Formats: sequence, structure tokens, C-alpha cells
Amino acid sequence: MRNLRLLIAYDGSRYHGWQHQPGLPTVEGRLVEVLSPITQTRVALTVAGRTDAGVHARGQVANFRTASDIDAERLRRAANSRLGADILVRRIDEVAEAFSARFDALAKHYRYTLWADADKPPYWEAPYCFHWYRPLDVEPMARAARHLVGERDFKSFETTSGQPRQSSICNVTRLDLGRDAEHVRVDVEGNRFLYNMVRNLVGTLLEVGRGRLAPDDVPRILDARERAAAGPTAPAQGLTMMRVDYDEARAVQEGRSGPSQP
Amino acid sequence: MRNLRLLIAYDGSRYHGWQHQPGLPTVEGRLVEVLSPITQTRVALTVAGRTDAGVHARGQVANFRTASDIDAERLRRAANSRLGADILVRRIDEVAEAFSARFDALAKHYRYTLWADADKPPYWEAPYCFHWYRPLDVEPMARAARHLVGERDFKSFETTSGQPRQSSICNVTRLDLGRDAEHVRVDVEGNRFLYNMVRNLVGTLLEVGRGRLAPDDVPRILDARERAAAGPTAPAQGLTMMRVDYDEARAVQEGRSGPSQP
Repeated sequence: MRNLRLLIAYDGSRYHGWQHQPGLPTVEGRLVEVLSPITQTRVALTVAGRTDAGVHARGQVANFRTASDIDAERLRRAANSRLGADILVRRIDEVAEAFSARFDALAKHYRYTLWADADKPPYWEAPYCFHWYRPLDVEPMARAARHLVGERDFKSFETTSGQPRQSSICNVTRLDLGRDAEHVRVDVEGNRFLYNMVRNLVGTLLEVGRGRLAPDDVPRILDARERAAAGPTAPAQGLTMMRVDYDEARAVQEGRSGPSQP
Repeated sequence: MRNLRLLIAYDGSRYHGWQHQPGLPTVEGRLVEVLSPITQTRVALTVAGRTDAGVHARGQVANFRTASDIDAERLRRAANSRLGADILVRRIDEVAEAFSARFDALAKHYRYTLWADADKPPYWEAPYCFHWYRPLDVEPMARAARHLVGERDFKSFETTSGQPRQSSICNVTRLDLGRDAEHVRVDVEGNRFLYNMVRNLVGTLLEVGRGRLAPDDVPRILDARERAAAGPTAPAQGLTMMRVDYDEARAVQEGRSGPSQP
């Protein structure tokens, strides 16, 4: 069996998230529908990080096993020609038999994009940002963010839908804010993320940016270990999964690497 | 009566073009629907250049007359909050009573965007470009373009649907090509344009870029003065109306200028 790893970009607007749901359009559902006949395999995808309805990805990673000997680049082109304009397979690599897009992920990078202006965003940005029309002070947000970098218990930033994760300790290695005219971007990198964690972090930073919370309220919020202590969940459409990092030498050690694409 | 000039951006994907058509979504139809109740006027818009179904605009200009004394900036905000994400009124200025967005336009700037790569474009570019997956040589296209700059008879580049324009003489003041990795953009500026002219120019340049026509075929195509001599019509979705130029001193001479927006 070959183990194939896909690097995928998608516009989440029209999809009910990543995960397959019978009768609903999902990114996983579309990929399985397209990849299965080409590879003559009942494709089962393992994904680095499931995304919710409306969340976008520029660098999602998934893998699946197949007995098909189709050339990885031919598979990629065939899949792209069948997928619509809103899902793109950017690259396919043959990876080590044991590789898992989920369990071997070392770090993930998410970006949250705000359009911070009284005016709404222009049409080509609208689907990929959250329109914040009130005044927003980014400087205290950046100060608040500093309290959130490092290995911390992020339980206050986990939306629990039934069963919470066993551990709520995550190592956030980067939480950067940048402003360029109307755009405010929040870049978050870490080893693992709890459910809705990035959106809950951003929602809390927005409370700081509008003056409802102070940067120094953040340690108290972390200590509380309860969702109600933090700010609201920022909307899905501003969130994009940018990149997943792996130990590349290990990932491809047994696999023949497929052709890369720019 | 006041004469108000609107600077408008829109995503043409979901619209049957600019012009009002009963029962179909059009950009003009949406604007009239939104502006009329706010101004308590039966709004009649005069537009700089009608766009076809699927064509986008970043700098379309239109004007209408109203007895309403609503502040221009308040009107702009009210209109934007009612319009969807795909139409944005970027600015409203009060202009001279005689100003016409159509007849006073001195020049228009259109951009045609190609995604020239075997791979399809990523989701955030897909609606705004034409995917050219064959090899494309831009250098001869640029040479061909030089024959098309200046005051010329562009009859071969006019799609005639019933009645052609009286004169087919246009002054194309700029026709630039630029390539940046997969993007090829064609920037066209001129004093007036015939129906489908930019898309027919691009379709002809693409015939040059793929080697079916030589740059020096262009003078012969111009001389032929018939549509069949030129290349096909490039698809609508790659075309964006970028800007319309006016004599600003004259446009606002009698009008009180409304607040501007970035």
C-alpha cells in the first residue's frame, strides 16, 4: 500500500466544514468523492486539523492509503480538474507508510483576518475576513497576546461540545498581531489547538481592542479555566489554516516523494 | 436637484451585468432598489460603462439626480449596509448639475487578468481571472499590443449585436502586458470602447501568445474591419473595470464635494 499526503487549499464558505456528513457538502466529502474513482480505492482521509463550517485553508494536510500505482502528479491533476474552483490540491507526496497527517503534525499555523474599518471590505476580501466596524486599538491587543504565548492551560479558550479534550495544555509558540491600513491579522502558531481555540483567542483579543478588557486581565482569564471567563468566539470566515509542519526527513523516509508544484 | 456621483466596486459573478433587467439580478437593479427608498427618489442611474454579466468593477462610476438633502456620507453608509458583500459604494460626491458619468468620461481603464499555469488558480483568485492552462508566450503578445495603441479603427474588435456603434474609431492610450509568476495582466486604457472590445483584444492577444497568430498579423486584422479577422472573445470573469477619469475641476465646479473615503 502507498501512503499519499495531500497539501490542500479551500474556500470554506460553501462547505459544512471539513468532516464528512451524509447529505451535506463538506471538503472531506468532496475529496473522497473525487479521489476514490481515480484511485479505485475507498479513500479514507486522515486530516491534520478539521476545520469548521466557513473556515478556509491554504495549507491543510491530509493523507490516505491506496493500492493504486497512479503517478502522484497525474492523480493531482485529475483531482483538480474534477474538483470545483474552491478546492485545490496543491501537491501530493508519497510518504512513509506510518505517516499520519494528524499525529505527526509538529505545529500548525492559523491566521485570523479582520477588516477593521467603518466601511465594509471590498468584494474580493469579504469572504475571508471578519468586518470589525467599531474602533479597534491594536496595541493593547498585542500586549494581551504576550500573556498567551508559551505552554499554558487554555481551558478558558476551549468551546466544549459534549466532551472536552483530555488535556487543555497547549504550547502557543507565536501569537502576532499586525495592522496594515484596514487589515488586522492575528497569526497563531502552536503544537495543538483545542476546539474553537483560535476563534476564542481572537474574540478575547477583540474585547481588549475595544477596551472592555485590559491586557492584564488575560492571566486571570487563563487561571479561571472556564470558557465564560474569556471573550466570545470570533466568526469562522475570518479564520484560515495556513500551514502544518512535519519532520520532513521522517515523513518521506520510506515514501518516494512525488513531484512538487509551486 | 442635486447630482450625486457614485464610485462603485462590485463582484460581477452573481449578476447579469450592470444594466437593469426585470426579474434578473443586475448591479444597477440592486443599486436602484437600495438607493431609491433612502433618498425617496425614483433613482435613475447614468453609468460610465455598462459591464456585461460576470465582469467585475473596482472603479465604476454612475450618477443620479435627487431632491433629497441627505448627507452624502450618510447615504453611502446606509446604502452599503443594505447592499450585500459583493457591491460596495466607495465614495459619493456631489457634482455639477450637468455632470454625466457617461458623457463626461475622458478615459477608462480596464484590467484583464489571466492565470497562466497548468494548475488552476487558488480559490481566492479563481472568480477574478481566466485560467489559461496552455503554454503562453507573453513577449510576442506585448509586441502585438504595440500595434493596437493609438487612434485606430477597432471595428474588427467589436462584437456587433444588432446595431454597431456609429464610429469604430477609438484612441487606445495604453495596452500593457505584465507577467508575475502565474499572473498575466493586460491593462487597457482608452477614450472609448466598442462592445466587447477589451475581451476581443485579449482573445486576439492570446492567439498570439499561443503561436497561432504573429504580432505582425495585427495590422492586417485592424485593416480587415471585420470581427472574423480577429481572435475569439476572452471570458468575462477575467475582466475588471478599474477606473474612469474625469475633468475633476469641472465635475465638481457647482457641486458641494462629499466626504471622501480611503
